[in-house]
Amino acid sequence: MKKLETIQNGQVYENSLKLHQELKGKIEVIAKVPVRNKKELSEAYSPGVAEPCLQIQKDVDLSYDLTRRWNLCLVVTDGTAVLGLGDIGPEAAMPVMEGKAALFKAFGDVDSFPICIKSKDVEDIVKTVYLISGSCGGINLEDISAPRCFEIEERLKEICDIPIFHDDQHGTAIVTLAGLINALKVVNKKIEDVKIIINGAGAAAISITNLLFAYGAKHVTLCDTKGAIYEGRTEGMNVVKDNIAKITDKNNQAGKLVHIMKDTDVFIGVSVAKQVTVDMVKSMAKDAIVFACANPIPEIMPDEAKYGGAKVVATGRSDFPNQINNVLAFPGVFRGTFDVRAKEINQEMNIAAAKAIADLIKDEELNSEYIVPAAFDDRVGKAVAKAVAKAAIKTKVNRI
Amino acid sequence: MKKLETIQNGQVYENSLKLHQELKGKIEVIAKVPVRNKKELSEAYSPGVAEPCLQIQKDVDLSYDLTRRWNLCLVVTDGTAVLGLGDIGPEAAMPVMEGKAALFKAFGDVDSFPICIKSKDVEDIVKTVYLISGSCGGINLEDISAPRCFEIEERLKEICDIPIFHDDQHGTAIVTLAGLINALKVVNKKIEDVKIIINGAGAAAISITNLLFAYGAKHVTLCDTKGAIYEGRTEGMNVVKDNIAKITDKNNQAGKLVHIMKDTDVFIGVSVAKQVTVDMVKSMAKDAIVFACANPIPEIMPDEAKYGGAKVVATGRSDFPNQINNVLAFPGVFRGTFDVRAKEINQEMNIAAAKAIADLIKDEELNSEYIVPAAFDDRVGKAVAKAVAKAAIKTKVNRI
Repeated sequence: MKKLETIQNGQVYENSLKLHQELKGKIEVIAKVPVRNKKELSEAYSPGVAEPCLQIQKDVDLSYDLTRRWNLCLVVTDGTAVLGLGDIGPEAAMPVMEGKAALFKAFGDVDSFPICIKSKDVEDIVKTVYLISGSCGGINLEDISAPRCFEIEERLKEICDIPIFHDDQHGTAIVTLAGLINALKVVNKKIEDVKIIINGAGAAAISITNLLFAYGAKHVTLCDTKGAIYEGRTEGMNVVKDNIAKITDKNNQAGKLVHIMKDTDVFIGVSVAKQVTVDMVKSMAKDAIVFACANPIPEIMPDEAKYGGAKVVATGRSDFPNQINNVLAFPGVFRGTFDVRAKEINQEMNIAAAKAIADLIKDEELNSEYIVPAAFDDRVGKAVAKAVAKAAIKTKVNRI
Repeated sequence: MKKLETIQNGQVYENSLKLHQELKGKIEVIAKVPVRNKKELSEAYSPGVAEPCLQIQKDVDLSYDLTRRWNLCLVVTDGTAVLGLGDIGPEAAMPVMEGKAALFKAFGDVDSFPICIKSKDVEDIVKTVYLISGSCGGINLEDISAPRCFEIEERLKEICDIPIFHDDQHGTAIVTLAGLINALKVVNKKIEDVKIIINGAGAAAISITNLLFAYGAKHVTLCDTKGAIYEGRTEGMNVVKDNIAKITDKNNQAGKLVHIMKDTDVFIGVSVAKQVTVDMVKSMAKDAIVFACANPIPEIMPDEAKYGGAKVVATGRSDFPNQINNVLAFPGVFRGTFDVRAKEINQEMNIAAAKAIADLIKDEELNSEYIVPAAFDDRVGKAVAKAVAKAAIKTKVNRI
């Protein structure tokens, strides 16, 4: 094919483009059954295949035993919130979706297949996903912009009989909680005591907030570009912000980030680059925790956060310590969910996943530069899967 | 899992059920890219993957170069006309769809992924397939009942920018034409001279009729349970039958199959078991050709057709000579289509596929018991692909 000029500057972009041109796709669908002769064809296909078909017609649950459904997750996007690139369209989102599928396979042995939907309409997306949901065992929503992603997920959970997971929300929340559990150990503070600021009000921020409360946090304030989100705020609100304001801190009723960060113990940034200054970190409580997870450029660079007095710093990047990376969660979450054929992925399962990730760091290893395992730590997927499956059984959402 | 009792009697059904229980799915989605360390992850996924995404955003055609789209066919069904089993539902159709995917891979090196749609509504199916069509390079419609299948295919061809193929129609038509080309050589008759009866008025019958006319047939009569289909018939007609009656033979304006088969040269059955008797074959012209393709039980058994005087007999079964099997066509058709990125699969490409299949039998090999290659003849997929690609270029539907 023709030589392409890279659009972005940087070796990683050049390498990635070259890799994608060489591979022509990062996934492949292969056959697990040989069809080399009449006997094999007659059993894998016509006429023998009529038998498994009739079995499933009689009992649709057998689709999990007689087809690949038990291990299949569709990764679904509309291409509206891809990486930090925004609304780039469904086809353009596919390199990310194929990458996700590769990670599902590598870290969870989950078969996943990317589907991009050529519509931004909530009705269209909900209906399309519902109508194809009999083809798979679970749906991973991906890179769908807020607040549409909340409604899409909510409605799909109501109408589908398979688990629906929005990784940008819950995957991020799980790994953030995992990191926070260990960061709090490092600074010797308790989740119920600390004051937490979450900067952002998108998919990740909302889900992190809900998961932190479910885990026992008492003092969380969300902050968007207009400042703290509180009940009764009128500017720049939506139904999702209205709802979250009902459970977040009542004390921080107004103020820009620079003001409300004062005396907080934990800053979690899931917003955009360079929102936080050294002085803002200085204004935080002693032994502050700063998760600056904006990608690719954090809200504040780790050395600056440290200079400002932060005791533990995490980012979304692989080139700094403590990478808050979803890959620690989603492969194991789906592996565990599929292993017990859970009908949903609930908060207990998400918390179990977070604890499992945190628990992999032994007390004697734990330090401010090592609060979460590396993305390639091959214990992670298995530990998460085991914990998630156990939580599914405990909450009685397992089907085997 | 629990022991299942087979629903149908027969060793092949027992073996097939056992095979499906052991395999738990006949396809698998694998990763073609390693993600074992930071460098590999940063190029296959974030942040490097932003580059191929932006390239596709700039030029959507690059989705064929930078993702698996160039080689990906979605096999789509609603489960309404599966094998001879009828409307068994979307999930129950999946063993067939996975089998199809396995055949696509084995004989065409095409990646294919099965999608079952939980609706029988034409609007729903058209919209769903359209909305996910950016995820793949082509759509193979499968086991959707007539006459809905015609409208679904027609409308998808209008709105999608990728090739749409309904294998039950066109795959069957291609292989039937291939067989007929060689059968006519055996009996030394010409396509334009022979009188042809097609028994059936479903997906296969309509498509075979159209392809035979496109190839040069002049005298074709369709026949359904009410008898010959002709212009002005009132009973049991629909828009598809009305349209086909405009091009089929004007002379056979009425009569049941038993009457209109008299003096015909070719009988093509795509209906149900045991429609044809020895006497009916006896009433045909000298050196008659009988394709009794009802599955699993033909319209007439080969020995009876021979006894009635048929010179060439074909069936859909692998345990008799001359198996009219779609697997001879669809893997190569999609391979050739994908190789030149054709935007459609037209009749010229279908005819080229049929000729390529027929041409594989050399004149000195050709005889009444060997008119089409075996399903496992590994020359077939390649020959069909080459011919189809060439025809796509000739008709200017290729995009590379």
